[in-house]
Amino acid sequence: MTTNGTNGKESENRKLCIICSKGSLDMAYPPLVLANAARMSGIDVDLFFTFWGLEMICKDKMKNLKVPTVGNPSMHIPTMLGGLPGMSTVATTMMKREIEKLDFPEIDEFIEMLSDAGANLYACKMSMDMMKLTDEDIIEEAEIIGAMEFMEMSEGAQLLFI
Amino acid sequence: MTTNGTNGKESENRKLCIICSKGSLDMAYPPLVLANAARMSGIDVDLFFTFWGLEMICKDKMKNLKVPTVGNPSMHIPTMLGGLPGMSTVATTMMKREIEKLDFPEIDEFIEMLSDAGANLYACKMSMDMMKLTDEDIIEEAEIIGAMEFMEMSEGAQLLFI
Amino acid sequence: MTTNGTNGKESENRKLCIICSKGSLDMAYPPLVLANAARMSGIDVDLFFTFWGLEMICKDKMKNLKVPTVGNPSMHIPTMLGGLPGMSTVATTMMKREIEKLDFPEIDEFIEMLSDAGANLYACKMSMDMMKLTDEDIIEEAEIIGAMEFMEMSEGAQLLFI
Repeated sequence: MTTNGTNGKESENRKLCIICSKGSLDMAYPPLVLANAARMSGIDVDLFFTFWGLEMICKDKMKNLKVPTVGNPSMHIPTMLGGLPGMSTVATTMMKREIEKLDFPEIDEFIEMLSDAGANLYACKMSMDMMKLTDEDIIEEAEIIGAMEFMEMSEGAQLLFI
Repeated sequence: MTTNGTNGKESENRKLCIICSKGSLDMAYPPLVLANAARMSGIDVDLFFTFWGLEMICKDKMKNLKVPTVGNPSMHIPTMLGGLPGMSTVATTMMKREIEKLDFPEIDEFIEMLSDAGANLYACKMSMDMMKLTDEDIIEEAEIIGAMEFMEMSEGAQLLFI
Repeated sequence: MTTNGTNGKESENRKLCIICSKGSLDMAYPPLVLANAARMSGIDVDLFFTFWGLEMICKDKMKNLKVPTVGNPSMHIPTMLGGLPGMSTVATTMMKREIEKLDFPEIDEFIEMLSDAGANLYACKMSMDMMKLTDEDIIEEAEIIGAMEFMEMSEGAQLLFI
């Protein structure tokens, strides 16, 4: 993307850095789908999990992300009904079923698949400290780095905050 | 943005690719306002509608996007009150009135205006399949593409995920 | 980031433009943490406050941003309970305490610190009009600009929409 034709970096690869900040199921898929498309197109991919997005790589949470029903007008569920116990579970089950039909894996498998395909996984140190998580809590494929390290590695990349 | 001064691409135009992923009224305007400003500045614009953002180009939904009141602390509506039937409608009406005062069109007109101004509209194939939408359901100005095609067309562009 | 090696712009600095659009406490920190890391890495930083994000620089609101509990499955609070009066205050207090432990300042001090460190602060004119805010309502470090001015100043920058 940013070669200048005058030095050895001419062949530098296109790079996409995606900051994953959400812990809801419906916002966990977009970064993974885009990262997958990018890897299939030969683009370098870094995924940086921060704030609620850390749950996407937490061993005990990544299998249980949910779709929020209240505060999400796209669900077309009346607000009072959306607040009823169980509605979020219904919406989550429905979404998982549709995603499975499309042959997309569940979050944990999807992340492992991306790691195998060469995407780099990073966990935000500050967010881990804030949520009192240790390296035991997250998948071993993820490397823990600080925000400054992320800034340095994302030089020249296209950025997405999801 | 990324000319290298050594080949025929020297005059390549600056490009902005906006991924529209939200179906709430308050998050439907930012991509359109930014796309409009970009077109007026002579920047190439691609809008990629995915996940809940597909509702922005769905014929039967684009006129009825709503502002969520619960889960949105910026509304300054107490949580219990925000959950009352009708509060979201009140907030939506208020926002539409303010936006109209500023001479911004409603979502459907705004999108048509952007298309006329040369912005390219794309619908995400995977999201359409997931929501069981066909090309009959979305506006005809939008072209249906996959995530890989989007990755390829966004090379060298500035990216936004909204 | 995008020098072409053939003109005086060769030494142009890497630049990050962050669009801040959210007024909840948990989504106010990510842009500030990233902006801080960028400044510490010597990267130019522009922060553009728009829509609900304007509350981050509103004198009477920036000290009182809250964490939403409903519509945020990452809070792991049952939906009915999340809607109870006071739950958002509890979550907000908990988050503030954790952030303080990490030596991060509160929002108002954080923004002042970033301004002192050379980050540029911009308020979106359209959003101010929509919310009926005047320049008296926002901090004096912020300059009011339109979306087109923002598009022009963000040329060649890496973009984030938060």
